[in-house]
Amino acid sequence: MEAGRFVRLILTPMRVLEKIGEMREASRACRRNGGRVGLVPTMGALHEGHLSLVRAARAKCDTVAVSIFVNPTQFGPREDFSQYPRTFDRDCELLRGENVDLVFAPAVQEIYPAQPGSAGQQRAAVPAYSTWIEVAALTDRLDGKSRPGHFRGVATVVAKLFHIVEPDVAFFGQKDAAQLLIIRRMVRDLNFPIEVVGCPIVREPDGLAMSSRNAYLSSEERKLALLLNRSLREVEQAFRAGEHRIDALIRIGSDAFSLQPAVRLDYFEIVNPETLEPPAQAERSLVAVAAYVGTTRLIDNLLLEK
Amino acid sequence: MEAGRFVRLILTPMRVLEKIGEMREASRACRRNGGRVGLVPTMGALHEGHLSLVRAARAKCDTVAVSIFVNPTQFGPREDFSQYPRTFDRDCELLRGENVDLVFAPAVQEIYPAQPGSAGQQRAAVPAYSTWIEVAALTDRLDGKSRPGHFRGVATVVAKLFHIVEPDVAFFGQKDAAQLLIIRRMVRDLNFPIEVVGCPIVREPDGLAMSSRNAYLSSEERKLALLLNRSLREVEQAFRAGEHRIDALIRIGSDAFSLQPAVRLDYFEIVNPETLEPPAQAERSLVAVAAYVGTTRLIDNLLLEK
Repeated sequence: MEAGRFVRLILTPMRVLEKIGEMREASRACRRNGGRVGLVPTMGALHEGHLSLVRAARAKCDTVAVSIFVNPTQFGPREDFSQYPRTFDRDCELLRGENVDLVFAPAVQEIYPAQPGSAGQQRAAVPAYSTWIEVAALTDRLDGKSRPGHFRGVATVVAKLFHIVEPDVAFFGQKDAAQLLIIRRMVRDLNFPIEVVGCPIVREPDGLAMSSRNAYLSSEERKLALLLNRSLREVEQAFRAGEHRIDALIRIGSDAFSLQPAVRLDYFEIVNPETLEPPAQAERSLVAVAAYVGTTRLIDNLLLEK
Repeated sequence: MEAGRFVRLILTPMRVLEKIGEMREASRACRRNGGRVGLVPTMGALHEGHLSLVRAARAKCDTVAVSIFVNPTQFGPREDFSQYPRTFDRDCELLRGENVDLVFAPAVQEIYPAQPGSAGQQRAAVPAYSTWIEVAALTDRLDGKSRPGHFRGVATVVAKLFHIVEPDVAFFGQKDAAQLLIIRRMVRDLNFPIEVVGCPIVREPDGLAMSSRNAYLSSEERKLALLLNRSLREVEQAFRAGEHRIDALIRIGSDAFSLQPAVRLDYFEIVNPETLEPPAQAERSLVAVAAYVGTTRLIDNLLLEK
């Protein structure tokens, strides 16, 4: 362990905060001293992709806050909210290793308080949670098309975390390309005083994009999951070889899945990387794929560039 | 002029800011010195109702910011956005008289930037404004029922102003009772670090609630407009005389309008003051009325209390 880090660990041990008021106060204490606060919002089950965001935050900010919150409002009724991997103690160990200052790990009740008497009672004394942020024209594209309400839940919980942590900078991964765009659009449109930094996809040595959901895969499925990245690379190769017709490129990517019935394609799309609409040309377009490997839904993407 | 105010005017003349960056910086400068910032959002055409909010802010905060912005997204297509009274110079005089520190008066373009090439072009290089805040279950009640999309526009622009000014406290009038509730709900649900203060309705000597839209009234209409407040008082009297049946109270209020065909009732409702839903009992319920006097839509309300 290098000396600076050792001193840091001694002087400012990582704090784990569960309450909104504590979190806000810890962040404000940093800013009062002129420090910059960086936030990395996560749902835990951390992997190298998350840690790359934490390192980007550590390099850019004085105080690094990581939130760990499996947000129920971004899961559909038949999705994996209850099964989503929760590895809190290991997550904290990893974050300590990255010199994180603050971990915000609230209970669901802290973020969406249960309203007294709201269960089955029409006229509760205290009204239930009811405020939602919609990023129109983006929330129904890519994953939003397959997961109705997903991005509404994401935008809403990120706005809440922004108001609780009040960061100067927030860090998101490029793997959830549509999510990153939606956050950027929300920040721009609602004038959040926050800089959004997107970080590149981190991959396993064989090319599989890192994901907390990779933990669901059997060893057989783990091999099949490579198909997502392989289909993207085939499109990239065809593009580099001179194929610039978008429908032809989409066909090449989709065809990669037709030979492997154990992997069910959800979407294979080429879109404008800013608007997620059909692109004017293949150059500087985003190629995005989602597929079910067994029951596990995985995503991946890459940018086509000259 | 008392000495303190004179010194204040010399030392810190009121600043009128048109740019988001300038406004944010001015507010942050105050907070860096440990000061509390109060925001009074207005659409200008200021009257004593607005000034009562400014005085409440002056009493509670170190820096008082007043925004003047006629927000196009809260007006319906057939409403009075273009006719809405704009009296900027007079507004500034009034605010100077109240020792306001900062006036934020952005152009529409500053708050909703026009997107290059977005007019009539499907795939604009820069995507158009697209983020909206919905306060479900409240935005379709009272004025929201008569003015679809109105409260979505209000919640969205207030969130933008909150992110630009970053106030500690924000002040709203009780006349727009549903608006005040929606802002409170939004602040609670999205964890804005802001205290919302509601201030009582300010009335003309004869009882008419102050409103920028009163400027639209002819002298004949001005007399007819008293009917709104009179109908509320008749309900209050009946309540005090022992009438606690809600349907009977609504009938008393509505009947006041049936004799005056020149005033067209939009709604006369008695609602739960927190949820705007039908109240369990008349006690501590909100009586709210909206009516057209000529083409001018006016609102008023009062709380029934023992």
